[in-house]
Amino acid sequence: MSIVIVAAESGEVLDTYRAVLAEALPDLDVWTWPDVPDPAAVRYALVWQPEPGVLGRFPNLAGIFNLGAGVDAILRDTTLPAGVPLMRLADAGMGDQMVEYCLYGVLHFHRDMDLYRRDQSAGGWHPRPFVAPGQRRVGVLGLGALGAQVADACTAFGFDTAGWSRSPKVLRNVHAFAGAERFDAFLARTDILVNLLPLTDATRGILNADTLGKLPRGACLINAARGAHVVEADLLAALDDGHIRGCLLDAFDPEPLAADHPFRHHPGVLITPHIAAQTLPREACQQIVNNIKRLEDGRAPYNVVDRTSGY
Amino acid sequence: MSIVIVAAESGEVLDTYRAVLAEALPDLDVWTWPDVPDPAAVRYALVWQPEPGVLGRFPNLAGIFNLGAGVDAILRDTTLPAGVPLMRLADAGMGDQMVEYCLYGVLHFHRDMDLYRRDQSAGGWHPRPFVAPGQRRVGVLGLGALGAQVADACTAFGFDTAGWSRSPKVLRNVHAFAGAERFDAFLARTDILVNLLPLTDATRGILNADTLGKLPRGACLINAARGAHVVEADLLAALDDGHIRGCLLDAFDPEPLAADHPFRHHPGVLITPHIAAQTLPREACQQIVNNIKRLEDGRAPYNVVDRTSGY
Repeated sequence: MSIVIVAAESGEVLDTYRAVLAEALPDLDVWTWPDVPDPAAVRYALVWQPEPGVLGRFPNLAGIFNLGAGVDAILRDTTLPAGVPLMRLADAGMGDQMVEYCLYGVLHFHRDMDLYRRDQSAGGWHPRPFVAPGQRRVGVLGLGALGAQVADACTAFGFDTAGWSRSPKVLRNVHAFAGAERFDAFLARTDILVNLLPLTDATRGILNADTLGKLPRGACLINAARGAHVVEADLLAALDDGHIRGCLLDAFDPEPLAADHPFRHHPGVLITPHIAAQTLPREACQQIVNNIKRLEDGRAPYNVVDRTSGY
Repeated sequence: MSIVIVAAESGEVLDTYRAVLAEALPDLDVWTWPDVPDPAAVRYALVWQPEPGVLGRFPNLAGIFNLGAGVDAILRDTTLPAGVPLMRLADAGMGDQMVEYCLYGVLHFHRDMDLYRRDQSAGGWHPRPFVAPGQRRVGVLGLGALGAQVADACTAFGFDTAGWSRSPKVLRNVHAFAGAERFDAFLARTDILVNLLPLTDATRGILNADTLGKLPRGACLINAARGAHVVEADLLAALDDGHIRGCLLDAFDPEPLAADHPFRHHPGVLITPHIAAQTLPREACQQIVNNIKRLEDGRAPYNVVDRTSGY
């Protein structure tokens, strides 16, 4: 019986997974695709952006673990075995990182760091009046495990924080908007928008000319979710005409972002290479080991993906 | 009886002070230097970087209020009347702003935003491994009202936080270093240094080739105190040889920073125009009104400056 690691990239991180899993699950062989001596012996798969079709080669799979919060890439694999539970990570150290990243972005625009950066090289000295955080309206798009933590942190910092989710959520001290019919109202009251939605058919391209246009003029955007949430040409146009003042983008479609992509030299754009929240191997392995034990005991595992909703 | 406002600059902010004081203290006339009909009637002075010698013109002064936390500028006025209590603001909304600013700076370096900024324009895509905040050593120089709040906030974010002060302080979950003999040990364990010291004869030029050299190689600096704490040429040299990786500077000597200053185009330097913590007029006026009432009642006022220590 074995667990196979199927990942788009190799490297140090995978070595850590191999070592930690081998130690925690001594009864399982840990293999790395394509080095799989006996496909029929593979009982679990641990995947990160796997090549489509690979998972269909293991006839006795009992569980698939996705190394990350977003499962959009794996759900596009039409050969994904039906009936095998697909599990994602819940947090695994990502919540704290996401809070750091998003709060950094919110403070960047809240404290006019983008404007001061331009003044710096232009030779200017233009102190802007301080705006109290209670006068700054932050809006978090997506109130899953990560979005809820980010909204909480913004509230704790005193920001006037709202959140939008598909289905209604209740969060302390966060104005909750839910459903398609409340989306425009949420956008209209948001000075700094933080996107943490899952990528599904319903959210692909959700940040486009129409929706960006519903934000107040001068609004800022932080995208810490997926590149495909954003219609790039629409965002660039909104930046160029000043409707969107600035953005901090962590995710792109495709990645890595091309070396000559217009985002790289736009004065209103800050980019990072998909580092907002990295999976921490040790915490991820704990969740995987826990779920494998539950499955072996015949109990329901945690964090099973609903393949219909896509998250 | 009157209160006079003596400030280097005029503007909207002073109008707010005039209005708020007039409302809160109906028995006092509110005058603005040099428009003072009767110098002998001036009982209180509210000052911000006053021209040296002005305060000596009011023979019946009972109290001087400095609009800011740092009193270094006014203490350099050798004509400052002796025996008249000089009071500074304690917080007045500055604590929260300072926490925002310093935490922004800490997150900037902690999450490698300076490195990603360079990759952005250079066409690179180089995700760096995440470093847990508990592995990142923040050091706060100066543990007064502002420094203690910043150290607390860094601790709350999980950073391994230390503080240094002239006299011993006890702060929960902050490694406290005190006195000249512990300064080197404090520097040696600090990856991100946040300067919030008062500017005194003892702290002028405290960040120089010698002290910067005692930080670990690759350390970062946030200066939210005074420009004169930093020996500029030494900082530039430390940045050029990579001993200091980057810095965020809010204060300069003199200000405004010259349009052609080398800080403006150095890739390791971020500058802001002395906006880290701005005095909020309404909160400042509350403290001033409160202290005037105490003085009129013959009680000791709060936040009196010790002219010997300089803060």
